[in-house]
Order: sequence, then structure tokens, then C-alpha cells
Amino acid sequence: MGLLKTTLIYPANAFDIQKYRRQEFFILYETPEDYKNITCNYLVETKQFENLKWVYNFLDKKSEEERIIYENPDKHDGFILAPDLKWNGTNLDELYLLAVAHRRDLHSIRDLTPNELPLLENIRDECAKTIEEKYGLKKSQLKMYFHYQPTFYHLHVHIVHIKYEAPGLSCTSVLLDSVIENLKIYSDFYTKATLPFLRKENDPLYKKFVEAGRV
Amino acid sequence: MGLLKTTLIYPANAFDIQKYRRQEFFILYETPEDYKNITCNYLVETKQFENLKWVYNFLDKKSEEERIIYENPDKHDGFILAPDLKWNGTNLDELYLLAVAHRRDLHSIRDLTPNELPLLENIRDECAKTIEEKYGLKKSQLKMYFHYQPTFYHLHVHIVHIKYEAPGLSCTSVLLDSVIENLKIYSDFYTKATLPFLRKENDPLYKKFVEAGRV
Repeated sequence: MGLLKTTLIYPANAFDIQKYRRQEFFILYETPEDYKNITCNYLVETKQFENLKWVYNFLDKKSEEERIIYENPDKHDGFILAPDLKWNGTNLDELYLLAVAHRRDLHSIRDLTPNELPLLENIRDECAKTIEEKYGLKKSQLKMYFHYQPTFYHLHVHIVHIKYEAPGLSCTSVLLDSVIENLKIYSDFYTKATLPFLRKENDPLYKKFVEAGRV
Repeated sequence: MGLLKTTLIYPANAFDIQKYRRQEFFILYETPEDYKNITCNYLVETKQFENLKWVYNFLDKKSEEERIIYENPDKHDGFILAPDLKWNGTNLDELYLLAVAHRRDLHSIRDLTPNELPLLENIRDECAKTIEEKYGLKKSQLKMYFHYQPTFYHLHVHIVHIKYEAPGLSCTSVLLDSVIENLKIYSDFYTKATLPFLRKENDPLYKKFVEAGRV
């Protein structure tokens, strides 16, 4: 309470400096065509799908195994729950956990279909049960959500205390329960939906949308 | 900058005290059945549809006419744009406008169908044009969204600067562009969707959801 938190990055490379410099934000609306024609190309060009070794090490328990809170080991419908690195582990008002799917072919909510409902419902129900037992918080006191675009392209769910306005949480975040309910009603929702996301003006994906005349 | 803003309410009634007391928040998920069986009853019981005289006075220009920034006078597809009372009118980083529909039969996004697309697109496009001309902000620098549940049950859209985390803006807010795109793909989306919303523990609607075993 009342403490000033600072982050020192040394040495700082060009990416770090760009990340922390004050920049303007923009909201973009990605249609399915934009996803196919702009975003997917960007993801391949920037090797987003090849930069996931740290996630696989975590799922394979080659790193950070001691951080695991809960695991459903099923390779298709299972996941691992662990604290986010940003949480100090004690202040419940800022509780921040991540549920990371075992499946490696799901990159973001764009890939979700009714086939993933068992996985999504496992994450929702088993995380809620685990968190109630371990931290005494009910499901109605938690926000469970996806970022879009995600910070890394391996399917994961953010879980924070209802009052915590976590970094990256915004009106473009997508609640897990909404994803589940949308997929139950409209099986093709995430392949047809226009998905909003926020980007800074120096972001490479933002620039690609500008080049394509989509901003 | 650096000023402390305070709100003095005197005399304060029980409702005011309850509103500002520190309380726990909860997230609720309203199915279409919940809307019909719980929310609609609550709205009728608490006379939400009868407490809108101040909105009608505004639309009829019996009050606050000097605040109007733009109007599309069409009674079916038109609206009035004005600054929100919370905005000081000068700090663009906290720009906060409201677009209020002329139609009086639309209470919230639950009532929206493809029939409302011309109204919604008018709000989006004409507000974007007006704001760019008057304030120099592009559409991609604006968040245009609905609250759910709304604070008052006459259809209106919040428009804020992209960087401004306005009071009430959260992951349960619904972006205007998403509403438009969802209705174009799934005409019955808002009559079928499960809609999340946040409530404090002393809120009467929250209590009704608890009584119904829906929390």
C-alpha cells in the first residue's frame, strides 16, 4: 500500500525502449479476412509460433514446475494453472493466475470451435474449484478472460480478482464464459466474428493494418 | 493534472451512502432466460422505464439544449450527441461523449436486432466524423461502447478517448462495432447471447440473481 513500484531494465534494447516509451494507442477491428490476409502473415513472418519454447518447457515441466497450482494432465482437454509472474502471491485483491492449455495447435480464440468446449469448460470449472479451495474466492469474484491479440500465441486464460484492473485487461478482452456460450449457440463464431484489439502506433501489426488501409 | 477531484453529496440518502461505501463486486452471467425471468421483472418493479423523463426532456430540447454537439433528427434512425457530465470539455485525453438514440422503445443492447443497424451505423459514422472535425481525433482513437447493464434503460452509446479508462468501462462493456458486426452475422445474437455484467453485493439486481440461485 502506498509503495511506488518501478521496473529497471538494463541493458535495454530497442524493443524494450519502444515498449515503454509513451505512445498513442489505436483500436483496430480484425475481420476474418484481415486475420487471414494480414495477421496470419505477420505471425508467420515474426515467427510467433516458433517462439513458444518457454511455454513447452513449462508444460513439459522442464522449468517452473514448482509454480504449478493445479494440472489436468489430459493432452487434449487438459491444462496447467500457475500464478502469473506479475502477482506477488499474497495480495488476493491482485490475484493473477494463468491457465495454459496442453494442446499446442491452439494459438488464440480465433482457433476455437465447439471441439474445444471440453477444454474450455475444464479450465473454467476446475480453476474455479481450485481457486475457491486455495484462496477462498468464488467464481463470481473472478474475471477469467483471453487477451486479443494474445501476448503469446499458445492458448491461455488470464484469471484475476474481480476488482483487479490488470495490465492488458480492457474492453477488447474476451471473457471465457462468453466464449463458451457463444460457441454453444454459434459453432463458427470465432471464425466469423470481427475481433477488436488495441495497438500502439509503432507496433508492427498496427503498421500492417495501416498499410492495408484497414485503420 | 495532479488535482484531487472530490464529490460532496449533501444531504445523502440511504441510496447515496450505499453507492459510495466500499463493497465487494461480483460478475454475473445473464442468459436470455435470466433476462426474461429476473432482469425484466426487476426493471418493471423498480420502474426503470418510467424514470426516463430527464432523457426525454433532453431529446425534446426542454433541457440542456446548449450542450448538443450534433444531432441526426430522424425519429427512427437518429440520435443526439452531447458531452457526458463527467467530462470537463477541454482535456482530450479524457474526452467523454454520449450518443442518445431518439427511439424510446430500445432499452439496452438486449433489444437490438438488424432493424437497428441503420441507427447503430449512423451513431458510429456520424459521431466519428463529428469528433474528427471538432476534436481532431480519428475513429481508431475512440472507444465507442455500451454498458451492460446500462445505468439508464434508454439506448445510448459511450464515446471516450482510447486511453481513457472511464468509470464503468470494463471487460463487460460491449463495443459498438462488435454489436454491429455480430448483428450482421447473427441476426438474433442479442436475444440469444449470455451477457456478463458486474454488480456490488448490495445491489438489488444482484440480490435477485442470488435468490434465483444464479450466482
